[in-house]
Amino acid sequence: MAKRMTIIVFSDEMDKAYPALILANGAAAAGMEVTMFFTFWGLNLLKKGKLGKLKLSKMNMLGMGTSMIKKRMKKQNVASLEKLLADAKELGTKIIACEMTLGVFGITKEDLIPEVDEMGGVGAYIMDAKDASINLII
Amino acid sequence: MAKRMTIIVFSDEMDKAYPALILANGAAAAGMEVTMFFTFWGLNLLKKGKLGKLKLSKMNMLGMGTSMIKKRMKKQNVASLEKLLADAKELGTKIIACEMTLGVFGITKEDLIPEVDEMGGVGAYIMDAKDASINLII
Amino acid sequence: MAKRMTIIVFSDEMDKAYPALILANGAAAAGMEVTMFFTFWGLNLLKKGKLGKLKLSKMNMLGMGTSMIKKRMKKQNVASLEKLLADAKELGTKIIACEMTLGVFGITKEDLIPEVDEMGGVGAYIMDAKDASINLII
Repeated sequence: MAKRMTIIVFSDEMDKAYPALILANGAAAAGMEVTMFFTFWGLNLLKKGKLGKLKLSKMNMLGMGTSMIKKRMKKQNVASLEKLLADAKELGTKIIACEMTLGVFGITKEDLIPEVDEMGGVGAYIMDAKDASINLII
Repeated sequence: MAKRMTIIVFSDEMDKAYPALILANGAAAAGMEVTMFFTFWGLNLLKKGKLGKLKLSKMNMLGMGTSMIKKRMKKQNVASLEKLLADAKELGTKIIACEMTLGVFGITKEDLIPEVDEMGGVGAYIMDAKDASINLII
Repeated sequence: MAKRMTIIVFSDEMDKAYPALILANGAAAAGMEVTMFFTFWGLNLLKKGKLGKLKLSKMNMLGMGTSMIKKRMKKQNVASLEKLLADAKELGTKIIACEMTLGVFGITKEDLIPEVDEMGGVGAYIMDAKDASINLII
């Protein structure tokens, strides 16, 4: 049976979305099954048209803002977040949107991108995480 | 033997305290044993009278402040942090306060809520985490 | 075979660097093998001369700033970050610097402290994390 990784995506900053998706895709490329559980601010990543507009969690770190980091990433051939999410789906990653937070924020299914596989609660997360080899929250 | 979950609670924002307790209670409800290790800013959650006064980590996200999120949570029947902590205790969750940080911040046992089971160091955490199925830090 | 712990160090604040190193050293002291993977802002910790100059993630929390926390830590006999890193190395902890982020930030091997064991990608992290008992990201 394949090993599993789960990642809770709690944040909606660009610098957190990158490691979340790069870790997910790295695990999937290594043959692992991956579950991404998006909750709280992280749900913003699943709203239509939002993934390309994320900002850094710290603005002037190292003298670089969001757009400079984006340019440097492109130059280093780092894929865009949209491409990374498409790759994740192609690699079979399961995308869960936290049902409870959707209700709190008043976000409906229609607001979400089609890549979302299911809306689920903490029970759905625990089910996958309890037998997983790697569990992270970012 | 029951599977175990550990959560290091490093932060003291409302939006981090909720997932910490909801994840803990979800795991306990699924039959897991849970250890919560409160350290650094997270110790504020264990100080008397603080749990109900936490703020969001980001103020104007999605146009919602702390009080609006609280209202929406109540409307969605999300339990208060105090209720979630009471539930955690009833479900048998072990609450550890980080001994080293207590010393650094000058917090004494008398400042802490009675729900704290023990004051312990990194060794107490590793003891539970090394055989746990889920380990998170928030 | 010894149990393993991995920690992804994503952040570069003093209050995150302490738990990262204290957890790593606690695990190593308990006989575990430890891998620390430094990425994004966390790479700043590996730049020459930076470890002693980190700031808190929140400035006026509890009325204490960076220098007051440092004083109180010293008084409580908490080792400095430099000492904790030296201890980590002595305990056999593996220090990996994220290759992709180095490229994005234009950081070269010469900018890094000699404690770095290797530059590696997500694959190197997954390799260690997939069989580890404790995996954290801070």
